[in-house]
Amino acid sequence: MSVRLDPRSSEQYRALLAKYDTWMFDCDGVLWHGDRLIDGAVEVLDILRKEKKNILFVTNNATKSRKNYKKKFDVLGIEAHVDEVFGSAYAAAVYLSSVVKLPKDQKVYVVGMSGLEEELKDEGVAFIGGTDPADNTLKPPSDGIPPDPSIGAVLVGLDTSINYYKLSKAFRYLHSNPACLFLATNEDSTYPSDKGLLPGAGAVLSPLKTALGPTRPVTSIGKPSGLMLDCIKAKHNFDPSRTVMVGDRLNTDIQFGKNGGLATLLVLTGITTEENLTGPNPSSIVPDYVTPSIGDLRILKT
Amino acid sequence: MSVRLDPRSSEQYRALLAKYDTWMFDCDGVLWHGDRLIDGAVEVLDILRKEKKNILFVTNNATKSRKNYKKKFDVLGIEAHVDEVFGSAYAAAVYLSSVVKLPKDQKVYVVGMSGLEEELKDEGVAFIGGTDPADNTLKPPSDGIPPDPSIGAVLVGLDTSINYYKLSKAFRYLHSNPACLFLATNEDSTYPSDKGLLPGAGAVLSPLKTALGPTRPVTSIGKPSGLMLDCIKAKHNFDPSRTVMVGDRLNTDIQFGKNGGLATLLVLTGITTEENLTGPNPSSIVPDYVTPSIGDLRILKT
Repeated sequence: MSVRLDPRSSEQYRALLAKYDTWMFDCDGVLWHGDRLIDGAVEVLDILRKEKKNILFVTNNATKSRKNYKKKFDVLGIEAHVDEVFGSAYAAAVYLSSVVKLPKDQKVYVVGMSGLEEELKDEGVAFIGGTDPADNTLKPPSDGIPPDPSIGAVLVGLDTSINYYKLSKAFRYLHSNPACLFLATNEDSTYPSDKGLLPGAGAVLSPLKTALGPTRPVTSIGKPSGLMLDCIKAKHNFDPSRTVMVGDRLNTDIQFGKNGGLATLLVLTGITTEENLTGPNPSSIVPDYVTPSIGDLRILKT
Repeated sequence: MSVRLDPRSSEQYRALLAKYDTWMFDCDGVLWHGDRLIDGAVEVLDILRKEKKNILFVTNNATKSRKNYKKKFDVLGIEAHVDEVFGSAYAAAVYLSSVVKLPKDQKVYVVGMSGLEEELKDEGVAFIGGTDPADNTLKPPSDGIPPDPSIGAVLVGLDTSINYYKLSKAFRYLHSNPACLFLATNEDSTYPSDKGLLPGAGAVLSPLKTALGPTRPVTSIGKPSGLMLDCIKAKHNFDPSRTVMVGDRLNTDIQFGKNGGLATLLVLTGITTEENLTGPNPSSIVPDYVTPSIGDLRILKT
């Protein structure tokens, strides 16, 4: 059972503040919706900083590099530092450079956007595909796609230029070469855009999963995967037992916290509704705490 | 256990010929590979016609209308008549016009190619999307996608111009309107093109299945669905107990035969390998008969 925090009483929030030194935040649906701040988010982050808490932003958004993502915080007036921001694009690039240690004569075929390319560049990982105009076409493959043993991995993230040619290339590289790694930044089925809910990275990835079949599983780097936490651990010291993950998605944010032995705080300003918790088919993923909004922590302001 | 037919002995093939009056054939991987005839296919069909068998061609290919598909038979020198050809595009159009009886003020949003559009046109079903240049773009949706209650169904088939804009529109129409039907011509995960194996209709469909989640199941019209057989039954008389379905795919062709109470004959000239039948992880879908190639039936030539 989750502890339901009561926004009218400060006691429970004070206990939370005392118990956790490191606060990890999902962003979209928690701190903002598209270009609109969640009411109170800036004040709450200020309170945590004044209390000397470690603050980390952990996002599955792989369309932006950390540097570009930082700009979003600036525009919205949220204090943030690039080394506090962990995106699934960055984590995927670090995974390839530091965990897989992709040989220098191998490259990655990218199904994804410029943010993913920037992170790969920064980590010195060679790649093709991505935003290359040659691969961003609505023409189907007309000349066949020869196998390319120099492609050591296919990496898929949200790609709003997804097309059949790119999918066919990625499929052929994976299908023709059992040694080629099959990686995804994340598997969020949808993403909440300014224009409403749209298909997410998990949707863009699914044609490859379907075409390749269950014998060729994908390795996902972003939440809820432990690989994302490994990436954070490599850069920051924190005690998991004194860390809380704040998020709006049960199957990514909250599951991520659970997988990593962190406490979990669900907010209801994003994708999860009260119905998902207490309706006739409640989720099997149960957060430690639930509060209507991150803004509720303003009650701690002294 | 399947009966393994021995191509060196005519006896088993003669028994088959005597037992079944109606012969349903999958095409790609059974009669041809891309633009190349399977050795002996024409002679075997001629033998069956001389024996006064009913011949039907049952294909999940939804990129071509029946009329266009018929041209493929002509080019390859196979005798065929349009009313013998059942494609999943045709069956989907018949399903919408005759089973669903889509009201005249409603239309279908098509994720698919011109063959699907032609069949809808022939059945008098109104549609948008498909090959419309406005929807065939690599630009992401920038202005949002307003709900459209006049879209009574989203119909997805193989679409080599698949893109994020089309997927987003289809997703939004389905997500915003619980009454909007979610239909697919077929769910073949791959399709064997001239250029090698490529992602199939099931792969093109999967982003929508992923983004919508399991509470919004898709209705598939093509094999193995019984809706395809219903469509054939509406046009032809045949006795299922005296009908054999010949195919190369266990989870479409053979399952289709089993679902419909037909006998099933698997050929190994297409997607299914001996490994799939007798390897360490054999399929749970067991055909009644297995023969290496449709050409083996030439042994019946007198």
